[in-house]
Amino acid sequence: MSEQNPLDLPEGDPFGPHNLPYGVFTPAGPGASDAPAQGSASSDGSATSDGSATSDGRRVGVRLGSYVLDAGAAAAALGSPYASLLAQPTLGPLLAAGRRTWSDVRRALTAWVTVPAHRDVVRPLLHPLSDVTLHLPFEVADYVDFYASEHHASNLGRMFRPDAPTPLTPNWKHLPIGYHGRSGTVVVSGTDVVRPTGQRKTPADTAPVFGPSIKLDIEAEVGFVVGAPSTLGTPVPLADFREHVFGLCLLNDWSARDLQAWEYVPLGPFLGKSFATSVSAWITPLEALDAARVTPPERTEPLLPYLDDTAATTASGSGSGASDSAGPAGSVVDEPGGYDLRITVALNGHVISEPPFSTVYWTAAQQLAHMTVNGASLRTGDLYGSGTVSGPSPDQFGSLIELTWNGRDPLELPDGKRTFLEDGDVVTMTAWAPGPDGTRVGLGEVTGRIAPATG
Amino acid sequence: MSEQNPLDLPEGDPFGPHNLPYGVFTPAGPGASDAPAQGSASSDGSATSDGSATSDGRRVGVRLGSYVLDAGAAAAALGSPYASLLAQPTLGPLLAAGRRTWSDVRRALTAWVTVPAHRDVVRPLLHPLSDVTLHLPFEVADYVDFYASEHHASNLGRMFRPDAPTPLTPNWKHLPIGYHGRSGTVVVSGTDVVRPTGQRKTPADTAPVFGPSIKLDIEAEVGFVVGAPSTLGTPVPLADFREHVFGLCLLNDWSARDLQAWEYVPLGPFLGKSFATSVSAWITPLEALDAARVTPPERTEPLLPYLDDTAATTASGSGSGASDSAGPAGSVVDEPGGYDLRITVALNGHVISEPPFSTVYWTAAQQLAHMTVNGASLRTGDLYGSGTVSGPSPDQFGSLIELTWNGRDPLELPDGKRTFLEDGDVVTMTAWAPGPDGTRVGLGEVTGRIAPATG
Repeated sequence: MSEQNPLDLPEGDPFGPHNLPYGVFTPAGPGASDAPAQGSASSDGSATSDGSATSDGRRVGVRLGSYVLDAGAAAAALGSPYASLLAQPTLGPLLAAGRRTWSDVRRALTAWVTVPAHRDVVRPLLHPLSDVTLHLPFEVADYVDFYASEHHASNLGRMFRPDAPTPLTPNWKHLPIGYHGRSGTVVVSGTDVVRPTGQRKTPADTAPVFGPSIKLDIEAEVGFVVGAPSTLGTPVPLADFREHVFGLCLLNDWSARDLQAWEYVPLGPFLGKSFATSVSAWITPLEALDAARVTPPERTEPLLPYLDDTAATTASGSGSGASDSAGPAGSVVDEPGGYDLRITVALNGHVISEPPFSTVYWTAAQQLAHMTVNGASLRTGDLYGSGTVSGPSPDQFGSLIELTWNGRDPLELPDGKRTFLEDGDVVTMTAWAPGPDGTRVGLGEVTGRIAPATG
Repeated sequence: MSEQNPLDLPEGDPFGPHNLPYGVFTPAGPGASDAPAQGSASSDGSATSDGSATSDGRRVGVRLGSYVLDAGAAAAALGSPYASLLAQPTLGPLLAAGRRTWSDVRRALTAWVTVPAHRDVVRPLLHPLSDVTLHLPFEVADYVDFYASEHHASNLGRMFRPDAPTPLTPNWKHLPIGYHGRSGTVVVSGTDVVRPTGQRKTPADTAPVFGPSIKLDIEAEVGFVVGAPSTLGTPVPLADFREHVFGLCLLNDWSARDLQAWEYVPLGPFLGKSFATSVSAWITPLEALDAARVTPPERTEPLLPYLDDTAATTASGSGSGASDSAGPAGSVVDEPGGYDLRITVALNGHVISEPPFSTVYWTAAQQLAHMTVNGASLRTGDLYGSGTVSGPSPDQFGSLIELTWNGRDPLELPDGKRTFLEDGDVVTMTAWAPGPDGTRVGLGEVTGRIAPATG
């Protein structure tokens, strides 16, 4: 443990008091569980995840530098009204509390870690990250994955529909294409990913072949976490994005391209995706990313009103305590919009791509409006992924199938060539975003190691 | 309330002691909540569903004739060890308890409603069905929908891919095609279904059109409810079906064909399905359906071993207390297999179809084995639908798109012609299966009324 007071962060630390992402942890020592917890990324990385609240010592934590603050304990020690909301084994109650509370809690937390008078109270409640176990921070309700990067969708179209008139399907510029994934196999960063087994069949095969996937891939994505629920039968308008979405995190949507290719016509991906989706242990609140908001790419097809983020809209939500959610009537609203997140993907420690999230065509607000326009309701803990983030340049592609052009052009790495993932490979995604006053806001990493197929 | 003792059921009642399906209810009277409960089908049918446990008087019930037994109260009154498992606001704990407990609880319940010595204790704990509110009986974890009826898939292939060499896609006979749906919009029978709004575009349209769906359809399905969970990374073999699946129910997978047609390439159905899926309030345990087990249709393509239900297999599960889950080594196992469920679909009270579940090509056991072969884990409360059940004959088709051949041949009903659903239409599905000794086992109905689009 460092001699330095963790409240005195190094200059420019991307996890300073301007960031304060939320997670769930078990501290080391007598307060912690002896047995590895379900849903934890234990030291061997082999744990499963369910995010359910247990009594194994889990608690809400807030990251500060390379420490994690026991948020419930701090709230109790400082007499905060949010003690019961934070003294929980999951982020669920905080997520459900809604935007005004999210703002109030963040303001309180900022004071706890910055006001000198609180130093002596807060200091003992900071645990070194290296000493704690991080868990899936909330129970995932529904998981939806989108397909929102034009560069990614175009690359896949060129590879798989070379004879089509355009790389994008006719619907692509009119709606954010998405599908439901398996929420029960969303795991926290650090959990091993067992290579999936299943059927594949190439045109050269006369019958399907069964075995471990030979085209195991990554998808570098950003995941959005729904806090406040909505009512069945009532769409959520574009401008209400921040009334419902609490924050975001990095997400790796592991994909078995060979399984997916054989199964996905006509009802979409299933086993090619459902074996694991990894998310960061840290959820960054949207409020920490205000300085990272950017205008999304130019819309090259007219949009239906419910998706039109170029037109004047005003927030209809009544629960907002913030004033930045809507501009004056008749003006262009800068929220909802894009986020300038700079992602780095490393394979066994070597950077293989730097996908820029700002290039993604469809915004998270458009995705939310689309997902609910048919009346589908939101629940606390709903998670939706942006889809693979790929920039225009080949060193910005967010998947191996793009980086190697479906295996044709292997990556040359110091430890050998790679087309798709091999057993033992470790993929780690990190990211940062512009913060206030020239700072950087770090996103929690998402990492996973490929374990051999079982059976 | 009838003068007759509800324990003296009419001869041949399909909800006799040989059936005993489980649900969750709130009794009428002082013990009930004043406010309409989330997740309930209130009298106006407009409630939403989330299945979460609340303290609004919900309790586990077992249907007997036209009454519901307060199972937790009966267990307590009779000193049963299952009192705490049954005195719950959801079926979750019972589902999670596993096959041996399911058998033991069923045996106990059978005794409570048949042994004369218990009559005076049990009688006051029976509530007329007409007096109670029924709720979504468990929290749906992941919801998967399959596409397992060859007749249905062939019909849709003929309609939508008329130029394809065969109506079925090349993968159809090799794996049970499925996709994930939205578990947060699974609602209990009786809940109104708000007509969804969204984008559609026919070849004749130059741009997408936005508005309420004009091709709102039904899908007559059977839903399977997972009880015992499985471990991430470990497939569930075919023979372990009954170690994990607790029971089944009728399911109506409402579908907006126009929304679906425009959105579904390349990632499958999304908003065309996610607005509502209705399930019966009653979950029939598989043990009640032993007499309904039948051999599935002949497999006309060779199956990979993990799906091959024509080969000798033995159950690997160790939790089984029953002896019927596996035949002798080397013999053909009759479990897993098909179920002979006779479904009736009525539109505004008029029978429009009688889909026979026994004609479905892929069994629920094959679907479970496929769903987990990539290592995906099961959670308590996972729900999977068979896909639309259609028999070979036109009066056995399980959807309006088939019954009217995509609107070309309207149904002639006493109250007018129908192609797709109109506002105010009520669709009700019922079913029965052969029970022991010539009895019939009734499945709980699933019904829903179409409410006009909002906004």
